[in-house]
Amino acid sequence: MIETVVVETDKIKKLNNPVLIVGLPGIGLIGQVVGRYLVKELKAAKIASLYSHHFPHQVFMTKKGGMRLIKNSFYLHRARKRDLVIVVGDVQALSSVGQYEVAGKILEFCKKHKVRQLVTVGGYSTGKISEQRKIFAVATEDKLKDKFKKYGVVFGEAKGSIVGAAGLIPTLGKIEGMEGICLMGETHGGYVDTIAAREIVKLLAVYLGISVNLKRIDERAKKSEKIMKKIEDEIKKSMETEYGSSRTVSYIR
Amino acid sequence: MIETVVVETDKIKKLNNPVLIVGLPGIGLIGQVVGRYLVKELKAAKIASLYSHHFPHQVFMTKKGGMRLIKNSFYLHRARKRDLVIVVGDVQALSSVGQYEVAGKILEFCKKHKVRQLVTVGGYSTGKISEQRKIFAVATEDKLKDKFKKYGVVFGEAKGSIVGAAGLIPTLGKIEGMEGICLMGETHGGYVDTIAAREIVKLLAVYLGISVNLKRIDERAKKSEKIMKKIEDEIKKSMETEYGSSRTVSYIR
Amino acid sequence: MIETVVVETDKIKKLNNPVLIVGLPGIGLIGQVVGRYLVKELKAAKIASLYSHHFPHQVFMTKKGGMRLIKNSFYLHRARKRDLVIVVGDVQALSSVGQYEVAGKILEFCKKHKVRQLVTVGGYSTGKISEQRKIFAVATEDKLKDKFKKYGVVFGEAKGSIVGAAGLIPTLGKIEGMEGICLMGETHGGYVDTIAAREIVKLLAVYLGISVNLKRIDERAKKSEKIMKKIEDEIKKSMETEYGSSRTVSYIR
Amino acid sequence: MIETVVVETDKIKKLNNPVLIVGLPGIGLIGQVVGRYLVKELKAAKIASLYSHHFPHQVFMTKKGGMRLIKNSFYLHRARKRDLVIVVGDVQALSSVGQYEVAGKILEFCKKHKVRQLVTVGGYSTGKISEQRKIFAVATEDKLKDKFKKYGVVFGEAKGSIVGAAGLIPTLGKIEGMEGICLMGETHGGYVDTIAAREIVKLLAVYLGISVNLKRIDERAKKSEKIMKKIEDEIKKSMETEYGSSRTVSYIR
Repeated sequence: MIETVVVETDKIKKLNNPVLIVGLPGIGLIGQVVGRYLVKELKAAKIASLYSHHFPHQVFMTKKGGMRLIKNSFYLHRARKRDLVIVVGDVQALSSVGQYEVAGKILEFCKKHKVRQLVTVGGYSTGKISEQRKIFAVATEDKLKDKFKKYGVVFGEAKGSIVGAAGLIPTLGKIEGMEGICLMGETHGGYVDTIAAREIVKLLAVYLGISVNLKRIDERAKKSEKIMKKIEDEIKKSMETEYGSSRTVSYIR
Repeated sequence: MIETVVVETDKIKKLNNPVLIVGLPGIGLIGQVVGRYLVKELKAAKIASLYSHHFPHQVFMTKKGGMRLIKNSFYLHRARKRDLVIVVGDVQALSSVGQYEVAGKILEFCKKHKVRQLVTVGGYSTGKISEQRKIFAVATEDKLKDKFKKYGVVFGEAKGSIVGAAGLIPTLGKIEGMEGICLMGETHGGYVDTIAAREIVKLLAVYLGISVNLKRIDERAKKSEKIMKKIEDEIKKSMETEYGSSRTVSYIR
Repeated sequence: MIETVVVETDKIKKLNNPVLIVGLPGIGLIGQVVGRYLVKELKAAKIASLYSHHFPHQVFMTKKGGMRLIKNSFYLHRARKRDLVIVVGDVQALSSVGQYEVAGKILEFCKKHKVRQLVTVGGYSTGKISEQRKIFAVATEDKLKDKFKKYGVVFGEAKGSIVGAAGLIPTLGKIEGMEGICLMGETHGGYVDTIAAREIVKLLAVYLGISVNLKRIDERAKKSEKIMKKIEDEIKKSMETEYGSSRTVSYIR
Repeated sequence: MIETVVVETDKIKKLNNPVLIVGLPGIGLIGQVVGRYLVKELKAAKIASLYSHHFPHQVFMTKKGGMRLIKNSFYLHRARKRDLVIVVGDVQALSSVGQYEVAGKILEFCKKHKVRQLVTVGGYSTGKISEQRKIFAVATEDKLKDKFKKYGVVFGEAKGSIVGAAGLIPTLGKIEGMEGICLMGETHGGYVDTIAAREIVKLLAVYLGISVNLKRIDERAKKSEKIMKKIEDEIKKSMETEYGSSRTVSYIR
């Protein structure tokens, strides 16, 4: 166990036209929130664990006095239309060598189980908070772009580079003959962005033809909205005091 | 010798229901103090050395003008009830890749010699000095927790993560079918904590049914207690001077 | 795809006395500008991509909403006299281990396709801006030096060391029986130096007996010259104000 | 050439009771000065080069417009009593993994050519400048210590650890059945210490029964002594000015 390995904890029978959903920690923790929400709401079954010597050399203590390795986990949900394999996890590998190795092992798993479509979830920081959160995306195939454009997903607007698994997995997957897309919730960056995450959960539910109870994430998003409204008000007030008049704040507007 | 290797320096005959005790440098040096104390008091015999290119590229100069590699060492004590393999050492590997590799090699050794139970020793910093030092623990099996609960060991209170060998060895060992526990002496952190170490030595003596002379560690613990009392008094005095009255100091109480 | 690999995207027929031109990012981006200019003006055909886990773990988003790995690319131009293989790329590996690995893979490609001459392009920072830009060089063979001396290339003046691919590829290539030269445009360092790049494009056109349209790079170089003249004037003015008289500025003269 | 390799550039015939002398850069550059001086004065012949991807990814430009890899070099001097293999070099690997790998390759070379005795040269910083420079040492065998004690070499006084090749090579060599010693010139640390280097050259000449012309190193050492005397005087003067009286300076005395 002194390398990167995927340990299948459950015998996995033939999958039905499976799609991989990757929700790992990243900007605004959007991927992680989406991944974990889907696993919980869909009651997806744990099928495999990925351990790596490129993850931090730490173990977590559990509430019951147990201990467990830092890991990424594979969950399976057999939906009506097609099967979902969801990858969530505590961390991403920090070094480049580690990132490529972990992404490679996830793709090996996909190849073995005939997963041909890869959907990763991340955030795209615009440095402001929009009323209407967009979902930006990049994809490896035009056909896949067309499918997602129907749902309002925006291609060609996000600029620059995607750091980590959300970018590497679909791009490396292409070389293996898979198609992939990276969905990025528009976010202010900086802290857990449940609002952006909710938009992606809703999109995935429609795209995948699954029913996901949004109650819990709606509540959390509403709470987030209130907190952000408050922050905004406080900033406005302090601006008025300081300068005698309200101004536009570039970060919060 | 340009990788991580365990060199057996002594022919090791079949072990009797062996348990591994790991006492490496870490928080408050508690693991190291416990490991070295047991080796010395039990007159355990050196059986193997672990060298690694993930340890610092330094060698130690000895008092007699000799030189030796940085290493971890395996000692054997054949007790009445069962055999003890004690691992002590100068350092822990600093990188994640190194930590996983070293832990893996220690477990390989255990597998080869049919060690099925792993006990690691570390510290858990509570940021204060308690009169009565607790021993916190996490374990891989409920059965093992029950055994240690009898001796007052506390499960489920320590929170967060354990860095390094004390956490990795039992957790990785579980994958190899071994059972493991990490014992953590309650400590203020910061410097060598002989008092916390003594509590763990006492616990291990009872749990393992071995007799360990506590005279030396009692003396050192008493000295430590005096020094800490003095520090506490000095701080109280300076607080009184500064603020005109004694206050609770969060670090020392 | 979790190591360093060269993926040939096109079937490559036998090459005619091929020469490798390497234009990767480095001082003043001179190598990159030269490499990309040649690829574009010569309409060279993409023949291979080099991917590496030693490149940053990022992917680029394209204008059309696509995504691609960070990579180095091989282009082929079949010129009248001999074939040109041009290597350009987004980045160089940052670690030593990565640099040696990438250079090794480029040389493997050369060996396979019987490339025997290696020309790398870089910059040599003299810390000033000369009216007449020199081209400095170092080479692995005296015969090769003689060929380039005819065109005014200066050997034996540049001092110190060359960091990265521009130095490693010809020097490692020598061990494989290839001959190599590193051409370094004289530069102020610091920002994109199109003027230095143009001089090297002109040299390569003559040396390789190819015709390269210099219009685009001439325009960009002229623009650069104007900007630099302006900076120079501004600095002179500020010097006069401060000290009452014009002084020589070591950086700009 | 994308790993650590020793390339033998000359056919090496059977060696006569060979001893390895290692003089690489380190504290006060003492090892490097000693190694290079011996190579030059003994007109030792280059027999092998060691290249490594753990060395910096740079190449050196030569005075004549050539280029060469960063490397360590093996030289051979066939003396009357026994053969000397001298290792010198531009650098030491910086990472632990690199250091162990390079030391391992040097020892492989020794094994192949039946070198059984290893002498490394370094510095030991005492933080002061002594009139009479001692030579400190640690060795892997008592017999070897005895041989060097005769020449005034001091064992058991230097404390702590030795960083890098000077420590690793003899200590790792012991595992391969070789005997080794690390000679450390007493030094102030900080800059090139020719005086300490000279003492070690003299010792090695006597120990190895070779004749080394000391003229050049004597001259350089004398120059160093003058410079240091001057520094000392300047410091004393400034102390007098500042405090009105001369004081002992802990660094220079």
